[in-house]
Amino acid sequence: MPHLVIHYTANLDSATDMGVLCRSLADEILAQTDETGVQIFPPGGTRVFAYPASHFAVADGQHDCAFVYLNLRIAAGRSEALVKKTGDNLLMRVKAHFAPVFSARHIGITLQIDEGRELFDAKHSNIHPLFEP
Amino acid sequence: MPHLVIHYTANLDSATDMGVLCRSLADEILAQTDETGVQIFPPGGTRVFAYPASHFAVADGQHDCAFVYLNLRIAAGRSEALVKKTGDNLLMRVKAHFAPVFSARHIGITLQIDEGRELFDAKHSNIHPLFEP
Amino acid sequence: MPHLVIHYTANLDSATDMGVLCRSLADEILAQTDETGVQIFPPGGTRVFAYPASHFAVADGQHDCAFVYLNLRIAAGRSEALVKKTGDNLLMRVKAHFAPVFSARHIGITLQIDEGRELFDAKHSNIHPLFEP
Repeated sequence: MPHLVIHYTANLDSATDMGVLCRSLADEILAQTDETGVQIFPPGGTRVFAYPASHFAVADGQHDCAFVYLNLRIAAGRSEALVKKTGDNLLMRVKAHFAPVFSARHIGITLQIDEGRELFDAKHSNIHPLFEP
Repeated sequence: MPHLVIHYTANLDSATDMGVLCRSLADEILAQTDETGVQIFPPGGTRVFAYPASHFAVADGQHDCAFVYLNLRIAAGRSEALVKKTGDNLLMRVKAHFAPVFSARHIGITLQIDEGRELFDAKHSNIHPLFEP
Repeated sequence: MPHLVIHYTANLDSATDMGVLCRSLADEILAQTDETGVQIFPPGGTRVFAYPASHFAVADGQHDCAFVYLNLRIAAGRSEALVKKTGDNLLMRVKAHFAPVFSARHIGITLQIDEGRELFDAKHSNIHPLFEP
């Protein structure tokens, strides 16, 4: 973790580059630090996945709407303040990315952060060692 | 919210129009009212996303099965009775949509409603104003 | 249930057959038994869906990384020991499947099991009868 999944209406693919958004949000996750300046999310566990929905429906169907839902799942245990700061910073990136779209069409954006409550958790990775001192 | 995500086996795309199902379910969400007749879900926050899985496995692999999983995530706080009524009404729509498929092939359908327990929740939308009085 | 969803970076599609992984994991789910040898997951409710993300970002973007996230949602009520055994067995299958990829490139794999806390749960299926005695 952190695991960020983006569900979005496929009508946005012609309006914006979602790959750029993925990279921007991963960078922002990596930039988060605690009050002592220590990075709070492990680089090797940071990933963002964006999925266009080819079939979708938004609102009452009478307006040509787009929608983006971003869900960040993090491991349990971080302080309320750090979670809020992370959410605020990600939202700033999201708003900046979609500003041209927002001024051109109907679009809804929702960003949520969930704390995982998994019963089982296993990792198998050769990415983490890249980031060890 | 409400946020409805449909995971389904891609072998259904030739058998039914999932875009029609998305619209039907969004309409049903918008039709839900409380005991005083007031709409319980905000139109501007209502969206349905359907995702065909190109890679999948169902049951023991010995029967040519299809599967549809529908997960509705709603904001916390609605009464048990309203959640149940919403689920029952959506299920009725789902059953009606898939009736021809159900009589023609092996298919499993599961519909669940989860209440979000997010630690962070932000909205940025120009859809909501369309539905304000 | 059980409902296993796999999010993965699309750069893996040229390196491995995710359909084979789906079948392997469904088989492993079906092979789980309790201490008396009774199967713990219903075959008719077992499904695995794998979704390649065409847009993604992993770690700091400076290494060509792949990622696989597997999330198994099960119904509430199984013992901690059975959940752990199920997770361990699935992880073994996942590691075996990705061993050639793991030795050839940077890849992170995370497997988690969540217990559903749904407020509403409905099933409509003609698969279950196939597995009744």
